[in-house]
Amino acid sequence: MHSYSHKNILDTLQFSKEDLNFLIEKTNRMNALHESGKAFGILNGKLLASLFFEASTRTRLSFEAAMERLGGRLISTVGFQFSSISKGETLYDTMKMIEAYVDIAVIRHPVEGSSRIAAGAVNIPVINAGDGAGQHPTQALLDLYTIFSEKGKIDGLNIAFIGDLKYGRTIHSLINLLRHYPVHLYLISPEELRLPEKYKKNLEGFPMTWEETTDIKAFWDADVAYVTRIQEERFPDHREYEKLKDIYKVNKELVLASKKDTTILHPLPRVNELSTDVDDLPNAAYFRQAKYGVVVRMVLLCLSLGVDFD
Amino acid sequence: MHSYSHKNILDTLQFSKEDLNFLIEKTNRMNALHESGKAFGILNGKLLASLFFEASTRTRLSFEAAMERLGGRLISTVGFQFSSISKGETLYDTMKMIEAYVDIAVIRHPVEGSSRIAAGAVNIPVINAGDGAGQHPTQALLDLYTIFSEKGKIDGLNIAFIGDLKYGRTIHSLINLLRHYPVHLYLISPEELRLPEKYKKNLEGFPMTWEETTDIKAFWDADVAYVTRIQEERFPDHREYEKLKDIYKVNKELVLASKKDTTILHPLPRVNELSTDVDDLPNAAYFRQAKYGVVVRMVLLCLSLGVDFD
Amino acid sequence: MHSYSHKNILDTLQFSKEDLNFLIEKTNRMNALHESGKAFGILNGKLLASLFFEASTRTRLSFEAAMERLGGRLISTVGFQFSSISKGETLYDTMKMIEAYVDIAVIRHPVEGSSRIAAGAVNIPVINAGDGAGQHPTQALLDLYTIFSEKGKIDGLNIAFIGDLKYGRTIHSLINLLRHYPVHLYLISPEELRLPEKYKKNLEGFPMTWEETTDIKAFWDADVAYVTRIQEERFPDHREYEKLKDIYKVNKELVLASKKDTTILHPLPRVNELSTDVDDLPNAAYFRQAKYGVVVRMVLLCLSLGVDFD
Repeated sequence: MHSYSHKNILDTLQFSKEDLNFLIEKTNRMNALHESGKAFGILNGKLLASLFFEASTRTRLSFEAAMERLGGRLISTVGFQFSSISKGETLYDTMKMIEAYVDIAVIRHPVEGSSRIAAGAVNIPVINAGDGAGQHPTQALLDLYTIFSEKGKIDGLNIAFIGDLKYGRTIHSLINLLRHYPVHLYLISPEELRLPEKYKKNLEGFPMTWEETTDIKAFWDADVAYVTRIQEERFPDHREYEKLKDIYKVNKELVLASKKDTTILHPLPRVNELSTDVDDLPNAAYFRQAKYGVVVRMVLLCLSLGVDFD
Repeated sequence: MHSYSHKNILDTLQFSKEDLNFLIEKTNRMNALHESGKAFGILNGKLLASLFFEASTRTRLSFEAAMERLGGRLISTVGFQFSSISKGETLYDTMKMIEAYVDIAVIRHPVEGSSRIAAGAVNIPVINAGDGAGQHPTQALLDLYTIFSEKGKIDGLNIAFIGDLKYGRTIHSLINLLRHYPVHLYLISPEELRLPEKYKKNLEGFPMTWEETTDIKAFWDADVAYVTRIQEERFPDHREYEKLKDIYKVNKELVLASKKDTTILHPLPRVNELSTDVDDLPNAAYFRQAKYGVVVRMVLLCLSLGVDFD
Repeated sequence: MHSYSHKNILDTLQFSKEDLNFLIEKTNRMNALHESGKAFGILNGKLLASLFFEASTRTRLSFEAAMERLGGRLISTVGFQFSSISKGETLYDTMKMIEAYVDIAVIRHPVEGSSRIAAGAVNIPVINAGDGAGQHPTQALLDLYTIFSEKGKIDGLNIAFIGDLKYGRTIHSLINLLRHYPVHLYLISPEELRLPEKYKKNLEGFPMTWEETTDIKAFWDADVAYVTRIQEERFPDHREYEKLKDIYKVNKELVLASKKDTTILHPLPRVNELSTDVDDLPNAAYFRQAKYGVVVRMVLLCLSLGVDFD
């Protein structure tokens, strides 16, 4: 077996190319087990704490479905119901308590870096399900697996990112994984929402290449286009949001004009940057993406718990 | 086996008399399995999404208990925690995501017709747990089963409905089931809260007969009296509610005066239209009704998933 | 087997010394089963309702973890989501419904005495998880077990209580258990927060002795020190809280100065009455306390359900 040895999943920067290829291979295997009904029971007797300090129903249900699909058990809490926090308890103390209860924890928290603090407090594995403007590594892993699954490879692909490259957390995370592969990126955004320099720094010395443009038609040369929502809640200045929110609209007409049968991804939820008339095209992979997400998380729960499957 | 073939449970109008008799028979069978501890495990490995876009703890817990009693698993979400919706996601997109996660979904939603939209979006079975002023079909099915179970038959019964026949969703739904049987209804309400014409239309051409009255004593001739709360939240004009809220009070004295040993049903919660001094009478079937509710939902979950039991 | 026969867990006053010793012995046994992975499955097929009419995430997750660790199932509800209550439903009616759904219920409620009302309404076992200013018996039982587990005995110990002895519910409950043993208490509090007379009444005729002081250094003579938070939410007068909130701070220096290698307990959450620099000392037992809490609750769930284990 490969030397993959990540107990905690905190950050996309923690993964080597070998790790990623190993995870893709294990996800293929888990997918087969799940489809044939043989994944249920792999985590029999294991208990997960699903700790959502802010609501994120999509991500929470995906993790909880993953645990249930493996036959594991869970305890769950959401948002303001986390009453001890309002009594002044620190995240450290909360995690020490949680460690006394369960075998593994998934944590979503509004403050960047909090998942690392949580993991530092305990001996059980901790998986970051998004911390503020920080990382959302499992989303990036499921995005990577979706690209592999749709295209059968990653090496040599042209991949477009469309929308808010400045605040889009899922983009920042996914780029950190893709950098290990010889791929070319089209970074399509308005000037105001270009990929910040600090994220480009992570790409130095890696085989990935990229170019920036404001022209949405650049995705016609891409094998994969990753469309993102302009996220109202991330903008410090609401007028800026109003100006930019409708700048790109990927619709059926645009997709059919692509030269390379472009596969369309989207982390969801979408608002109007991705038209529903795309849904019926075979190019639309974003609902399959949600399905892969459960399987990728099944893999991560197993590996972090040290439970192998084959 | 009977030709029952409902994957989705959306509306009481979808059921034929044969369907209803089949469901009653299966519920009898499930009840025996459940009592003897043999129902647990029937849905081993199946996963339910319990999607409550508005809080309805009674109904949610009943469905979740049903799934757990069968050995199935669930993921659950309630009300404002459904964070993606607040980001502008459509019900269609939410359901496409849910379909990627689970085997079956139960949905409660404040907007009439939303369960049909939800079912139209996906290939997994969808069960309507109440949509606004619309249908609440599983409540009606459990009411029907309670009547059968208490009286040993449905044909030939006299059944009184007491209270808010205008806004009472459970009454509208139950009448749609009872219409298939030769029963006689006493529709007891103040003038302002009579059964609307549009619901009477559904009764044309069926063997059911009915008469309307404002006199609560009409239930003394009924085998079953279905008492309902005047629901404050349904009244557009609050003064109207204040005027009518205490118009009928079914108490022990009234029940003991009935000529036919009337069985008292109530969908619960009650406020003061049904006195607690009735609770000790053998006539009081409303807490048994809650118990049958779990069993009826166990049956529906199995049949919608295509899992037979015997 | 011992004559322990408590179906409901409502109040610490219900336990005899024989009951407590029996529970300690069973918890030792359950701990061994749990550690060796043999506890899972003991409550296979049993269903718990976790009813939190006010948020208390720590206690809720502890009970839910206990049920999951035994292989049981649960349905859960928290706070304002208990929608029927807002429609005017009584606790009696809510419990009659819950009885129709599950095998056992755990209830947390803001109103003192409500768990007794809940238990009186139904035939299923009811466990009080805290009712307002009233009792929190399972917390007291886990505190007692922690003392036993840390010190190997209870007889003859000197035990200090530090902080808010007036409003501190966990202290009131624990003293009711400790009274059965020949122990000596140091009741350390400011004058304003002394143990109220009504709680002292419960101690008459028991082998426990006690003395009161305002001097925190009194704990240097104790085998165990039970530190509590000054609970802002319990003070009728906020100025009183402001004056007293920082009166005692147990820190590493103070603990190392103790003469008897004092074990430090705390029901958690803490604010600043217990310094984090204590955490690394072997004296710090408060995170182990959280772990024992799950095991104690596993025992109580089993015994209340009449399921023995060995």
